Amino acid sequence: MNFLAAPARLSTANATFEAEFKARLHWSAEADTAIEKTVADILADVQQRGDAAVLEYTNRFDGLSAASLAELELTQAELKAAFDTIPAAQRDALQAAAARVRSYHEAQKKASGESWSYRDADGTLLGQKVTPLDRVGIYVPGGKAAYPSSVLMNAIPAHVAGVAEIIMVVPTPRGEKNALVLAAAYVAGVTRAYTIGGAQAVAALAYGTATIPNVHKITGPGNAYVAAAKRRVFGTVGIDMIAGPSEILVLADGTTPPDWVAMDLFSQAEHDELAQSILLCPDAGYIAQVQASIDRLLNEMPRAEIIAKSLSGRGALIHTRSMEEACEISNRIAPEHLEVSSTDPHRWEPLLKHAGAIFLGAYTSESLGDYCAGPNHVLPTSGTARFSSPLGVYDFQKRSSIIEVSRAGAQLLGPIAAELAYGEGLQAHARAAEMRLNPK
Amino acid sequence: MNFLAAPARLSTANATFEAEFKARLHWSAEADTAIEKTVADILADVQQRGDAAVLEYTNRFDGLSAASLAELELTQAELKAAFDTIPAAQRDALQAAAARVRSYHEAQKKASGESWSYRDADGTLLGQKVTPLDRVGIYVPGGKAAYPSSVLMNAIPAHVAGVAEIIMVVPTPRGEKNALVLAAAYVAGVTRAYTIGGAQAVAALAYGTATIPNVHKITGPGNAYVAAAKRRVFGTVGIDMIAGPSEILVLADGTTPPDWVAMDLFSQAEHDELAQSILLCPDAGYIAQVQASIDRLLNEMPRAEIIAKSLSGRGALIHTRSMEEACEISNRIAPEHLEVSSTDPHRWEPLLKHAGAIFLGAYTSESLGDYCAGPNHVLPTSGTARFSSPLGVYDFQKRSSIIEVSRAGAQLLGPIAAELAYGEGLQAHARAAEMRLNPK
Repeated sequence: MNFLAAPARLSTANATFEAEFKARLHWSAEADTAIEKTVADILADVQQRGDAAVLEYTNRFDGLSAASLAELELTQAELKAAFDTIPAAQRDALQAAAARVRSYHEAQKKASGESWSYRDADGTLLGQKVTPLDRVGIYVPGGKAAYPSSVLMNAIPAHVAGVAEIIMVVPTPRGEKNALVLAAAYVAGVTRAYTIGGAQAVAALAYGTATIPNVHKITGPGNAYVAAAKRRVFGTVGIDMIAGPSEILVLADGTTPPDWVAMDLFSQAEHDELAQSILLCPDAGYIAQVQASIDRLLNEMPRAEIIAKSLSGRGALIHTRSMEEACEISNRIAPEHLEVSSTDPHRWEPLLKHAGAIFLGAYTSESLGDYCAGPNHVLPTSGTARFSSPLGVYDFQKRSSIIEVSRAGAQLLGPIAAELAYGEGLQAHARAAEMRLNPK
Repeated sequence: MNFLAAPARLSTANATFEAEFKARLHWSAEADTAIEKTVADILADVQQRGDAAVLEYTNRFDGLSAASLAELELTQAELKAAFDTIPAAQRDALQAAAARVRSYHEAQKKASGESWSYRDADGTLLGQKVTPLDRVGIYVPGGKAAYPSSVLMNAIPAHVAGVAEIIMVVPTPRGEKNALVLAAAYVAGVTRAYTIGGAQAVAALAYGTATIPNVHKITGPGNAYVAAAKRRVFGTVGIDMIAGPSEILVLADGTTPPDWVAMDLFSQAEHDELAQSILLCPDAGYIAQVQASIDRLLNEMPRAEIIAKSLSGRGALIHTRSMEEACEISNRIAPEHLEVSSTDPHRWEPLLKHAGAIFLGAYTSESLGDYCAGPNHVLPTSGTARFSSPLGVYDFQKRSSIIEVSRAGAQLLGPIAAELAYGEGLQAHARAAEMRLNPK
């Protein structure tokens, strides 16, 4: 079968650009009332009946016939056995990737995740103590999108943060276990793992059951049921984010081999028909070359059908007036992945305000970042890079403010606090401050 | 009228302690289906009809009769006028508090909110770029709990982060404007302000209307409708947290004047009947002294009725076997405010794992921290300190990973990425990595 990928061809010089651009970008995670109702029921049921409910839903939805939840635990021996049975090249790749991801996140912790404090002139100590979460849950999708790399990207930052217990859940539809996922859990040092998924797994992690310990935060992507469940348990536990379809935006100055750019666009498109791949370039001739590369390379790809649907349905090749304008448009999109495919990427990088990850230069294919460069591949999607960040060590830490007011400091601060407290009608606050003034 | 405050008297040595302790702690924000439905309808209506819907709800719920949303804008001149008309002592207190809060948050930004990067051995650049959010919304409650200090605590970290536009919303039931809130908005440098509130204000900020610009994150506390609305718009915009009732826990070694501790317990209890004040102390005699102080001081307080209800309904004086045990119990509670009322607070601080803010030593009353010590008073409640942090500069920043793989780096990383990508069935990812190997 021959597939055709026809991304929209837009030009910022056209009067119709704004409308076409907006239409192409539009994506909305419509809240599905039926899913919401189902998820609310599952959460309530698991909260009430615990293990029994999780077992029933798992057997029903994943086609299993387990007799107890304990049967669904993956032992450490089983994780190690999976690691031992995969090909040596895969073992080496997993370990090399894990080492680089660990090293990057250690640098991240050092740069922005350490406790700090100072004393001000009147001897008052101020600061923040940074501590790890005690126990976290990692949701790993099963079925068609089972990504061992995601196990590393979720578990390693938690480890680096100092989280003592990492509980992994991964559904195994019809009992099929993915050896590479299990091996990744072994490499990443997951504490306990269960073959459960869906809203029932989120509920088990959030509320705890007799078998599954409750956690304090749940990270990791999942389908619409998992997303709805995470949104509902938010507050009882922390969650990372609600992920939408994956996106790549390539800003090209026309100097990168067009085949490379075409393949980078494919690598996003192959995830999912809803994934979005966009090229922004001021050189119309280059855009035509990339389209020619797309046409030539597409049918070599095993996932050509998904790629073609994604590129034709949501992709775009946008001709801009300049690289500066391309940067502006990129900021409007706030893409998850942003490649600056240019011989002079550091010229453009300062103009880029919103993106999950910025890949600089022709050699930095997104795929290198996805697996092993070191930075996290769990990134904000659907424009949420305007207000959120890649998954990181900071997601597995929390902060406590530290305040130690000296006797001298209390004399200085007391009247200020009392004035404002009286202004707010909170007299006990005021009196508490005043009692510390000139004590015997 | 004479009020009595009778906090529960528990002792860890009693066999019934666990059950009594759990019963006292229990608090659950039951999802109220009626509120959820109302909020969903308001959000949908504002998303569709914009200004007109916000105007209608505001007039209806706040008893106003504005003809347009523009009428509900508070001009900069109005904010300044409020500042000019409040008493000089309040002006000075606001400015002194603002200066200290700013200084603390600047230290916070320097300690944990700056961009960082490094080059590894093969020349690959890795790091994170930290940038401010463009535009944020601050929700300030009106009515009975209108706190100007909260305006400072939300707006100043946003400013320090570098947020260009800070949009404040504050409802004015029956048109009553709080001059101190307006003055605080002036001092904190709020960009634009509107007298709207409730779910309709959250919707306006999240989706934008003709008059009100959409923001990228909404912070600040509110009632059950505001909380439900924030939960629903989460994903479209960022939110800070869903706040529960306020709490204080005092760990006392028996050396602080009992009146001080009693007043600190009051200062939490006076917020709200659902607020929780707990004292943990290994000295039974001291606990009796604190109860005596409570009995003596209570009826001097203008808010004695709320204090009595809060302490009797949710308060507890807990006799522990030791300070170490008191620290353990504190970790189980993960309180919002944690006072270590001891002559040797640094002995106990390292044992304290989960708390929003830790106040060390007898002089550090929570009220000093609430208003002007410097750290933020927006803190995680209801045990969420297990996984979340005080509001801070980091809430108004986001991070973009930076990756620049060198040609040499691509040769090293390519085979690792390709191996894992093939293992995941993502051939375009693999090919994208392989294309960078030994290029012409």
